[in-house]
Amino acid sequence: MSENKRTEINRLGEFELIHRLTNGFEQYQGNTVKGIGDDAAVIDNSGEMTLISTDMMVEGIHFDLMYTPLKHLGYKSIVTNLSDIYAMNGTPRQVTVSIALSNRFSLEAVEELYSGMRSACKRYKVDLIGGDTSSSQKGLFISVTAIGQATNEEIVYRNTALPGDIICVSGDLGGAYVGLQILEREKAIFLENPDFKPELEDNAYIIGRQLKPEPRADLIYSLRQAGIKPTAMIDISDGLASDLLHICTQSNVGAVIKEAQVPIHTVTEQQAIKFRLDPITCALNGGEDYELLFTLHPDDLDKIQGLSDVYIIGSILPPEDGVLLETSGGNFHKIIAQGWDHFDESTD
Amino acid sequence: MSENKRTEINRLGEFELIHRLTNGFEQYQGNTVKGIGDDAAVIDNSGEMTLISTDMMVEGIHFDLMYTPLKHLGYKSIVTNLSDIYAMNGTPRQVTVSIALSNRFSLEAVEELYSGMRSACKRYKVDLIGGDTSSSQKGLFISVTAIGQATNEEIVYRNTALPGDIICVSGDLGGAYVGLQILEREKAIFLENPDFKPELEDNAYIIGRQLKPEPRADLIYSLRQAGIKPTAMIDISDGLASDLLHICTQSNVGAVIKEAQVPIHTVTEQQAIKFRLDPITCALNGGEDYELLFTLHPDDLDKIQGLSDVYIIGSILPPEDGVLLETSGGNFHKIIAQGWDHFDESTD
Repeated sequence: MSENKRTEINRLGEFELIHRLTNGFEQYQGNTVKGIGDDAAVIDNSGEMTLISTDMMVEGIHFDLMYTPLKHLGYKSIVTNLSDIYAMNGTPRQVTVSIALSNRFSLEAVEELYSGMRSACKRYKVDLIGGDTSSSQKGLFISVTAIGQATNEEIVYRNTALPGDIICVSGDLGGAYVGLQILEREKAIFLENPDFKPELEDNAYIIGRQLKPEPRADLIYSLRQAGIKPTAMIDISDGLASDLLHICTQSNVGAVIKEAQVPIHTVTEQQAIKFRLDPITCALNGGEDYELLFTLHPDDLDKIQGLSDVYIIGSILPPEDGVLLETSGGNFHKIIAQGWDHFDESTD
Repeated sequence: MSENKRTEINRLGEFELIHRLTNGFEQYQGNTVKGIGDDAAVIDNSGEMTLISTDMMVEGIHFDLMYTPLKHLGYKSIVTNLSDIYAMNGTPRQVTVSIALSNRFSLEAVEELYSGMRSACKRYKVDLIGGDTSSSQKGLFISVTAIGQATNEEIVYRNTALPGDIICVSGDLGGAYVGLQILEREKAIFLENPDFKPELEDNAYIIGRQLKPEPRADLIYSLRQAGIKPTAMIDISDGLASDLLHICTQSNVGAVIKEAQVPIHTVTEQQAIKFRLDPITCALNGGEDYELLFTLHPDDLDKIQGLSDVYIIGSILPPEDGVLLETSGGNFHKIIAQGWDHFDESTD
């Protein structure tokens, strides 16, 4: 390390940072099939594949306990990791959970957090097999690792989309982001006037999208039953734009998304407009919807007709065409990634 | 959650807390061979076993950056997890690394942290396969998950020691703890007088034990080559007392440790006395030595004669005898756990 040079981390994007930190690592183990760069890593156990995915959630960065019930937080911390295993077309089987928390949290509060984790484990039939508990000087930190299983033939990567493939998404987008805006607004009003009782009912759907997302296990099973294997897949955690770009960059292809075909829930649309936000921008850049974004060989078009929750939103193009949004007015815009940048929120 | 009840977490020990939080989780997956309660979890992949271990390190709780070089910290964060895999008699193959850090850290500082991780991965031939980076509002958090492999026959658990077994340890104990006391003392002097240049050379050995521990991969291979399989094993992270009690409680056995046979390095002994600490207390309760504590069938006694770094320190007894320390003076004391309690240090 040069003693004199200081590069601020928030000047790099998250992916540039990860690249800078990890590119000097060599691979030593023959059974590492896939390392960094997909929803989950893939390890070969004599033909049976182990999938590993890990995520950290940090108080004040990823969640605000003023409007996030601990039970929901526990639930979300598990399911967001399971979503990564499903996005590999695998089956999650185990999780490990590590938490660090300050003495602001009582045993009862932590039990509430774990009761949400238990609900998620029960619903998706995964086993809690380990973890660590520690104190922190400030705030709550949750680190979850999900372990899944798949055969080599089942696994779907990000880097295998081909020109001509159809681009699909499993549900409406932007809701989690607009739901978050509502929670932030209600918090601001409450801080001004503690007697204020928030009216959240009308927006229950999008608030639920933010606080209690569900991974699309159901769709993974529907696709399997229909005999369809996506050519590439990712879960939408950073936003459609960023996650589509992952597929396109890693597959070395272009793409076009039709604005009019991107599913956006009525409530998302109405509330976005109230916030003077463009609904399609919320869908493209909002993130945290945990829907699946996947590509299909055009021959599979017939097979998806009977499936609910498969929305065709565009198609894969040759790389030279770039990654484009075709607006409802017929114009084409280049899609650029504008996911979350958590490092802007750091204040130590 | 009862709204009225508040139980402070630091009133529970770490193991009691883990028990309270995890005991309502059910097991759904047939391939979960071992969940919570050993150095690593065990997952069956049609005969080949995947071992999973995870640990969190928190600034201000587990390390102090005033005297912990980031490179050493990175190294230690990896090897302490590998130690858990070796303690199952497995071979570590992959790790995932998640970090959360405040904007106090520059890119150069984080690169230094990762260069230590890279050294550890290179030395122990493990692949970095994933992780997460996030910001934190305050301080540095490191969560590492290690993934290892073993056959079903190779795995050594904690709960399989039998009366009559010999108790062994792979190296001297208490050094990491006394090394930490020296670093803390030098920090206190430095804070009083910033011109002070610490003299650490004489204590290089025990400071190294604290800052740059090595997992005992070498001993695992020696035992294998000698055709010895321990009957039970654990790595000493919490201290000999606490970790021996894990073996005894889980195996439902008693034990006796002979004070005179517990290996303690001369420097550890001398420095402990300067701090008015009893050297055997440092060995029993200090922790962080990352030596292996294991039990052997008495028939294997001959086979270990040729092995360096196997110290016989006692024997396993029937459960009704309890877990005892036989002092050099011939007295017997009950061994109780007094590992770290990080929750006392939380200040949010």
